[in-house]
Amino acid sequence: MTAELKLIARLARMATHPAARRLSDDAAHLDGMVLTHDSIAEGVHYRADDPPESVGWKLAAVNLSDLAAKGATPAGALLSLTLAPPQEGALEGEWEERFLNGLDAACESYGLPLLGGDTIALPAGAPRVLGLTAIGRAGSHSPTRDGAMAGDELWVVGTLGDAMAGLSLLVEDRDAEGALVDIYRRPVPQLAAGEALAPAAHAMMDISDGLLLDTARLAQASGVHARIDLGALPLSAAFRSARGEDRTARLFAATGGDDYALLAAFPPGKARELRKFLPPKSIFTRVGKLSDGEGLSLEHDGEQIPLPEHLGHEHRAS
Amino acid sequence: MTAELKLIARLARMATHPAARRLSDDAAHLDGMVLTHDSIAEGVHYRADDPPESVGWKLAAVNLSDLAAKGATPAGALLSLTLAPPQEGALEGEWEERFLNGLDAACESYGLPLLGGDTIALPAGAPRVLGLTAIGRAGSHSPTRDGAMAGDELWVVGTLGDAMAGLSLLVEDRDAEGALVDIYRRPVPQLAAGEALAPAAHAMMDISDGLLLDTARLAQASGVHARIDLGALPLSAAFRSARGEDRTARLFAATGGDDYALLAAFPPGKARELRKFLPPKSIFTRVGKLSDGEGLSLEHDGEQIPLPEHLGHEHRAS
Repeated sequence: MTAELKLIARLARMATHPAARRLSDDAAHLDGMVLTHDSIAEGVHYRADDPPESVGWKLAAVNLSDLAAKGATPAGALLSLTLAPPQEGALEGEWEERFLNGLDAACESYGLPLLGGDTIALPAGAPRVLGLTAIGRAGSHSPTRDGAMAGDELWVVGTLGDAMAGLSLLVEDRDAEGALVDIYRRPVPQLAAGEALAPAAHAMMDISDGLLLDTARLAQASGVHARIDLGALPLSAAFRSARGEDRTARLFAATGGDDYALLAAFPPGKARELRKFLPPKSIFTRVGKLSDGEGLSLEHDGEQIPLPEHLGHEHRAS
Repeated sequence: MTAELKLIARLARMATHPAARRLSDDAAHLDGMVLTHDSIAEGVHYRADDPPESVGWKLAAVNLSDLAAKGATPAGALLSLTLAPPQEGALEGEWEERFLNGLDAACESYGLPLLGGDTIALPAGAPRVLGLTAIGRAGSHSPTRDGAMAGDELWVVGTLGDAMAGLSLLVEDRDAEGALVDIYRRPVPQLAAGEALAPAAHAMMDISDGLLLDTARLAQASGVHARIDLGALPLSAAFRSARGEDRTARLFAATGGDDYALLAAFPPGKARELRKFLPPKSIFTRVGKLSDGEGLSLEHDGEQIPLPEHLGHEHRAS
């Protein structure tokens, strides 16, 4: 067992309160509130030369995406901000001010008021660690990842692979621009769709680490088998024009991560009725189905194909 | 203006929601909940060779102390945990597991259930940054630091200077032991006292950075002058036997920080009536009074004495 898994097991033993749901979910539930916290570290979740505005936007977006997956309405946030000694040529606090501009833009866009938090100094040379607690008001039903049932259909809100395709462009050329780079830098949390789908979803979660990895997690938590049809994947026009839509491109989109789309399980036929409650232009796609059993399988053009070695993206220090 | 003050001003411009109270307080208020977040960094708020159990306990205690100052009852916490590559001779995850043991002990002691959070990897060599969001249920009245009035009396729950006296012993000898070291390592948040005093307090806050500095903040926020009587300071028997009780010792106790005592302002005569609602053996002491004007003054043995150069402890990277 890795050190990280051991620690997570230790945390689960601490989290005996029913509201913690044994830490099996991305958010906690307390007195009608949904609570989530995500942290990001320089050199692990973002690169030191990423635009600070983008880092601020993404920190808000990843937390908002967790609220979206519960169908919750944003109510407030607490920020954990570090103030690091500046890199050569930069003014002290300049990076942080640009970071706050990006965070503020996302909070304004999605109605997440900043309520408090903490600002601490860091020793010289320390990578920044930034955290946000987002609080939402729960709707009539807050779906978890463990409620899906055999027979359910698996649906996705949003498109897949855009952010990773954008990151690939940036790795080749730090000055790359365009729709894919924009989606990587400014992911859009699916708040309105999450609110619309939550009441009817047997299970729902956001796809932050890749469709295949997150589907495998949903299937494991729910005790069912999941089958994904690669041919059904929602791909944007920008993605198709950059990477095509053959099997290689589809596997890239299914394992990339950073999508912040929503993955949800519905009883057969239910999802079609829900389409009218989604925001206009929402991309809402059936990508697979659940059955008795366990694990994950993959099909394309009507034939079963082997699972890729890596189902998705797990953040590691680089 | 320092970079930190500029950033705090930038944050205050973002925090326009009434629940944020313009970030002037240590906690936010939302739907009957009190929310606070504190982060600590290795090399700034604790030493790399501090016992990890003590670091975990203190992270819980500083957040619980913020809830105590609002008279709130602990309801839950979200932890931001970093997993750092181990130092030479240590096993990966060993520090973190011992840290969690200390955190768990404090959470158990004060009824703060762990509900969720995030565990992230850090790059090699990065100092740890640990954060906790604590959520409490508000009582009938949540005092802030800006409600004190001229004529109020200033009272303290707890004793002052013990933690800093304990730290001094540890700086001299890393193996020092005893009551003062215990208080430094395992501060006690005054939750029951906070609940008892909150309904009648015009203003209340915890003393985390030293009595004089925190009193100056309360006076500034409330728009009044504060006068502290050094002779009235609550000093423990352990403190007096280690450092005496002359003016030097009293100034040390009044400026040390890390006390996690409560400071509260009451209308004249009110505090005495409240004593019977405090937990048995609570140390509840009148230390000063408020009047029209601004700023802070200090008296001892009936004469006014000059303010020390440093009113308290502000955390800086070492």
